[in-house]
Amino acid sequence: MYTLVLIRHGESLWNRENRFTGWKDIDLSPQGLKEAHSAGQLLKEKGYTFDIAWTSVLKRAIRTLWTIQDEMDLMWIPVVRSWRLNERHYGALTGLDKAETAAQYGEEQVHIWRRSYDIRPPAFAPGDETNPGYDRRYGELSAEQVPLSECLKDTVARFLPLWEADIAPAIKSGKRVLIAAHGNSLRALIKHLDQVSDDEITGLNVPTGIPLVYELDSDLKPIKHYYLGDEEAVKAAMDAVKNQGKAK
Amino acid sequence: MYTLVLIRHGESLWNRENRFTGWKDIDLSPQGLKEAHSAGQLLKEKGYTFDIAWTSVLKRAIRTLWTIQDEMDLMWIPVVRSWRLNERHYGALTGLDKAETAAQYGEEQVHIWRRSYDIRPPAFAPGDETNPGYDRRYGELSAEQVPLSECLKDTVARFLPLWEADIAPAIKSGKRVLIAAHGNSLRALIKHLDQVSDDEITGLNVPTGIPLVYELDSDLKPIKHYYLGDEEAVKAAMDAVKNQGKAK
Repeated sequence: MYTLVLIRHGESLWNRENRFTGWKDIDLSPQGLKEAHSAGQLLKEKGYTFDIAWTSVLKRAIRTLWTIQDEMDLMWIPVVRSWRLNERHYGALTGLDKAETAAQYGEEQVHIWRRSYDIRPPAFAPGDETNPGYDRRYGELSAEQVPLSECLKDTVARFLPLWEADIAPAIKSGKRVLIAAHGNSLRALIKHLDQVSDDEITGLNVPTGIPLVYELDSDLKPIKHYYLGDEEAVKAAMDAVKNQGKAK
Repeated sequence: MYTLVLIRHGESLWNRENRFTGWKDIDLSPQGLKEAHSAGQLLKEKGYTFDIAWTSVLKRAIRTLWTIQDEMDLMWIPVVRSWRLNERHYGALTGLDKAETAAQYGEEQVHIWRRSYDIRPPAFAPGDETNPGYDRRYGELSAEQVPLSECLKDTVARFLPLWEADIAPAIKSGKRVLIAAHGNSLRALIKHLDQVSDDEITGLNVPTGIPLVYELDSDLKPIKHYYLGDEEAVKAAMDAVKNQGKAK
């Protein structure tokens, strides 16, 4: 039996402002940093440890991971950063205030863009340099690999090769893995692990900053999963995520 | 022409207490953290950037690197940790106060242990669990690879394979490399780059927290090297290192 721990980065500055963030490299808010410290303390307290960690190339996930490593005295473990763990790329919605977008397009349309499995938000034009996908950190991606916009299905498709090629083999080799990532890249992973349907996955909300533990059998099929921490805190965090994108 | 930047971690808690640290995983002092922030700010101000970084598996070097990455907005670059970049392993002197050791063994003997090229300090007994080399982070090393004590020659010998196999090829492929490491692993690198003799290398003191820039030709032969920052600050930092280990 293997144990895999997932963590969604703590609240970012743009979560707080209710903006579509996607691939924009926005830092944690002070609250988000606090969440990361609590997560690290909790993991340590409960006796977890790790041999390797994966994260995205976005600082809100990396800082969450660093903070947990620091709290757990695990600064020395190998860390692999991959764009395949990035948040879903929100296309031309990137940077827009979610409530404003809802007021302009209607709450229903925003809900569709945020929560439908295969409908992409409006795309960046190819070559548009305001697309954060053209940052030099993505220099090794082909032109086709840089998203102009993503639906969750796209996020799943670019996440899975990393899982199959690198993360799953590491778990099977006995390594205790921590993944610090984003709401939608974690949805992609959970969809794969728990075989969640296309319709259902969009309703699944991973709260920020709360460790999600998966116990897996030898084929990496989930035996059970649970959040670490106080039940009410978990519920409050899940509700907070669900309410994002509602017009204010 | 290639540019390689080296940085010795900022002052640690044991540097301050004048103790032999070696492989003991001691954190930066508040002063050391300040040095790391200054180094990062200076590198950014002078227009440097990096594509990849190497560091040791010891938190004083890793935190120095993290702080620089944060200051330079480079949290996303790949980071490779290797025990081959660790500080020299001081054997049974690990944890001893340098001034006390000098008072007991004589300043001359301490100087020999710290500064001779091929004389090892007293060794840990094989299997002695107080040897920090038995920590689980070194689990992939063979019994022969875990040092019981190291002279600088040993440090050079275990550093060079990493240079030849990984770091030098990365530089030659055009990657801008930052190495955040320790006094003696950086001596090992500098000895190799500048072909410093066995006798002379032990007198070379790399100051903590000050970026050391090497400009290299296409064969990685140094064209020139220089410290970044104020000349007087560099001299003061070098003198501070030289005076460590003198009986007080």
